[in-house]
Order: sequence, then structure tokens, then C-alpha cells
Amino acid sequence: MNYERFKQQMNFILEVDKLKEIYRQTYISSANRKENDTEHSWHLALMAMLMAEHMTEKPDILRTISMVIIHDIVEIDAGDTYAYDVKGNETKREREEAAADRIFNLLPKDQAIYMRELWEEFEAKETPEAKFANALDKLQPLMLNDATNGKAWLEHDVCKSQILNRNKSIEEASENIWKYITETIDANVNKNNIKDC
Amino acid sequence: MNYERFKQQMNFILEVDKLKEIYRQTYISSANRKENDTEHSWHLALMAMLMAEHMTEKPDILRTISMVIIHDIVEIDAGDTYAYDVKGNETKREREEAAADRIFNLLPKDQAIYMRELWEEFEAKETPEAKFANALDKLQPLMLNDATNGKAWLEHDVCKSQILNRNKSIEEASENIWKYITETIDANVNKNNIKDC
Repeated sequence: MNYERFKQQMNFILEVDKLKEIYRQTYISSANRKENDTEHSWHLALMAMLMAEHMTEKPDILRTISMVIIHDIVEIDAGDTYAYDVKGNETKREREEAAADRIFNLLPKDQAIYMRELWEEFEAKETPEAKFANALDKLQPLMLNDATNGKAWLEHDVCKSQILNRNKSIEEASENIWKYITETIDANVNKNNIKDC
Repeated sequence: MNYERFKQQMNFILEVDKLKEIYRQTYISSANRKENDTEHSWHLALMAMLMAEHMTEKPDILRTISMVIIHDIVEIDAGDTYAYDVKGNETKREREEAAADRIFNLLPKDQAIYMRELWEEFEAKETPEAKFANALDKLQPLMLNDATNGKAWLEHDVCKSQILNRNKSIEEASENIWKYITETIDANVNKNNIKDC
């Protein structure tokens, strides 16, 4: 077995360690600090192991987990773009494509292609796996915002309509996740953690 | 679809957020701080996606990833036990079993059993998947120790013989991983990051 190929893979594995220092706007449940992309991705992978049964279209679990594990790697170069940052989201795609070109290509060619395809599939939100991964990617920070009394929502003056708009695709994708999301939003509007606008 | 079951799963998903504050002895590659269990588990999951080809016995990737995602959850209650902490390792199994009883049983019964079986399989180190997961669990901190000039090894006065003894099962499990481990140990003995004892 090719040792040079192994070392090339290790090179990538070490490079992506940087994702542990890319922080999101969401706080961990103790509210002690913000969470980083690798913690977030781990959390989504665990959810993918347990919650496929709630999806309208049945997803493949391995493909979904693989997608959530790698979905934020581009942020090593592109940085985290907050969901409700209008200006940041205008340039997000361009910044993330350049990052994907650099980072995934550290791997042997076949695996670079595999990573790129997984990431593009996540971004396109069309397959059952991408819909599941994207639903989890929205459900997890909502859960943490709720657990921290809306800490990140309050810091960013977020309106109910913004959250509903961002999450609307989940209504068709999963009845239970949608029910949880709408109930959680309403409870937090009542507690003034989310603005009623 | 049962919404009560969904909420029970969410309860577990929120509880295990605590794993983001269980810190290991290993430093992240920038050496800015120690890494936590969820960051470590994410890293192993990514390695499992890419490195099965180096294993002597072919593992199932989904089962391996699932195992590494959950392998440290018991540390929420039991804490992290350092590899070379002799006293801590005497009580480790007992503390971790009690943790598994409490934490996995937050899930619906069928999923609690699934989690417990995955964890026991990881601990037993007998199946191809458990051997792969355990090899990665040793390879990843070794890579980070090497990247940080042996920071954690130096803090704990670690000897070459301790590391070799802890990693010896990898020799049969993977030729390339074993080659990388022995080369990395020797290079760090030469740099005085590992004691030659």
C-alpha cells in the first residue's frame, strides 16, 4: 500500500485542524463561549445517526454524515458567514469556491473529487441527503439558541420572519423538525429572545 | 411520526453538548489550547472517511464513523483519562460504564441499545471497525503532538516505551499507520520531545 498517498492524506488531515479555530455566532449550551465549526459538525453527524426517521424522503446515512463532517471545511479560508449577514452572504459562494479548490486538492485526486462532490451536493440542497444535512444544519443552532435564552439572536437583533424565511424549506422536508422549529420560535418570541417582526 | 420520540432524541442531543467542554491533554495544531472531545471525534470521523484503505482488515465505514462519533460521550460524566495516567486508568472502566448507563438511556430504548453496542464494540477492539477506530484514536493525537513539538508529551514526561506499548496493536492492523507512528516517535525522540526510556 502506497505510503506517499497515506502521507498526502495526513497532510490534509493536519491542515483541516484549523477548522477548530473557526468560530460561529452560536453559543454552546452552557453559554460559556461560541462554538466552532468542528464541534458543530460533530453534533450534526450524531444527529444524522439518530434522526433520519423524521425525514419525508429517506436519506442514506453514510452519505449524510460524510456531508456534514466536511460541509464547513471551506470556512478555514472563507471564514464563517452569519446566516443573517446580508453583505457577507453576497460574496460567500465565491470565497468558498476558492477555498474548496485549495483545501480539497491537498488530497489525492480521487479523494479531492469525492470531497468536492459531497460539498457541492450539500450546497445544492436537492438530494434527500443534502436536505437532511441542511435541515440538521438549521435545527442544531436553533436548539442551542433556545438553550442559551436566545443569546446569539439577541446579539444580532434577529426577527421571527428572518428565521422562518431561512428555515422554510424544512416544512416539506420533515414534519417533526418543522413542528419543533415553529414551536421553538414562538416560545422565544414570547420570551422576547426573538423580535416579533 | 412520533413527535414525543423526536423530543426525546433532542433531549439527548442537547445533553451531549456538554462533551464540547471535556478537554483532552492533546493541543490543537496551533498549540493555542487543548482540544476537546467533540473536536477530536470530528477529526477521527473525517479520517475514517479517507483512510480505510490502509487497514489490513477491511472495515465498514459507516459503522466506524458512528463508533468514533460516540466513543467519548461517556466522558461527560467520567471525564477524560489521560493515556499514561496509571491511577486514573484503574477506575476508568467503572466510571465509564455508569456514564454509559445514564447518558445512552436518555434515548428511546432501541437507540440506547444501539449506542451502547457501538461503544462496547469500540472498547473491545476486536472487530475490523473497532480496530480501525482505535488506530485512528491513537494516530490523531500523535499527529497533533508532533505538530506542536511534543507539547503534551513534554508536559507529561512521556517515554518512547510507553507510546510504543500503547500503540503496539497497530503493527498488525495497518502497515502504513504503524510506519508513520514509529517514524514520528523516532523523530521526536531525536528532538527530545519524547524521553528515550
